[in-house]
Amino acid sequence: MIKRSILSLTSAAVLATGMHGVAHANDPADVVEYRQAVFQVTKNNFGPIADMLKGDIEYDQEAIKKMASVVEMMSTLVEGQFPEGTGPLETETNALMDIWDEPEAFGERIAEFEQTAVTLVEAANSGDKRQLAAAVKDVGASCKACHDDFRRDD
Amino acid sequence: MIKRSILSLTSAAVLATGMHGVAHANDPADVVEYRQAVFQVTKNNFGPIADMLKGDIEYDQEAIKKMASVVEMMSTLVEGQFPEGTGPLETETNALMDIWDEPEAFGERIAEFEQTAVTLVEAANSGDKRQLAAAVKDVGASCKACHDDFRRDD
Repeated sequence: MIKRSILSLTSAAVLATGMHGVAHANDPADVVEYRQAVFQVTKNNFGPIADMLKGDIEYDQEAIKKMASVVEMMSTLVEGQFPEGTGPLETETNALMDIWDEPEAFGERIAEFEQTAVTLVEAANSGDKRQLAAAVKDVGASCKACHDDFRRDD
Repeated sequence: MIKRSILSLTSAAVLATGMHGVAHANDPADVVEYRQAVFQVTKNNFGPIADMLKGDIEYDQEAIKKMASVVEMMSTLVEGQFPEGTGPLETETNALMDIWDEPEAFGERIAEFEQTAVTLVEAANSGDKRQLAAAVKDVGASCKACHDDFRRDD
């Protein structure tokens, strides 16, 4: 289960105002490029953890800890990267308008990503494969839930 | 001045063998996509620090600390992302063949990036603007030196 917290509201508020200060850019295409890069780095570090658990690639505890920490850091960079003016009406993006129509729901998804990523780091550091598998499942569910609702299929 | 260390040799060795375990992918295009995303995230977090120092955007000490830590983490992801088979002869990339022709020199550049990024974090955490400006200059010089020698101009 994913715990919802006050973070959700914060995210929604930040999204609504687009006031988050870090790494902002003015050109919508630049904003999209940046957030896509954040998700790309996330994917390349999350995917191998799941692959290692499945035995598709060699299990490497140190690499898992590192990749989990990268995923966690990336999760903190999502907030504020969907300001007004960076939707499908304004620029080329797979982001759906629902992000701006339902900012609170979207903010909750971001908060879930952040929270599950923290749990992933804890699980990675624990060295407990069962705990790690549960955390990977939660992060994956968080990715999927947000993609299902707020991202256009490729 | 940038101190060179044993890290340089490690990087060169890793580059030569392409054995680095984290976030590897088999398709050259995937490798390129990932390393470009790493540099994109680097740019979007390094640029605003310089902009804040110049006064182009509002100075935000907490944001600077965060962005510096992102740059530092990204710097650790570069090593191993230029394996054999991901050069301009094999795929679409701005990476120059010199990377594979001079792996030791390229490895030193990566090590410089890692080292200057650590110094950037220290400077960001110190809150000393003069120290930060010096660290930003060193990171920027590291970026430029590597781009000059190993990256095709856009």
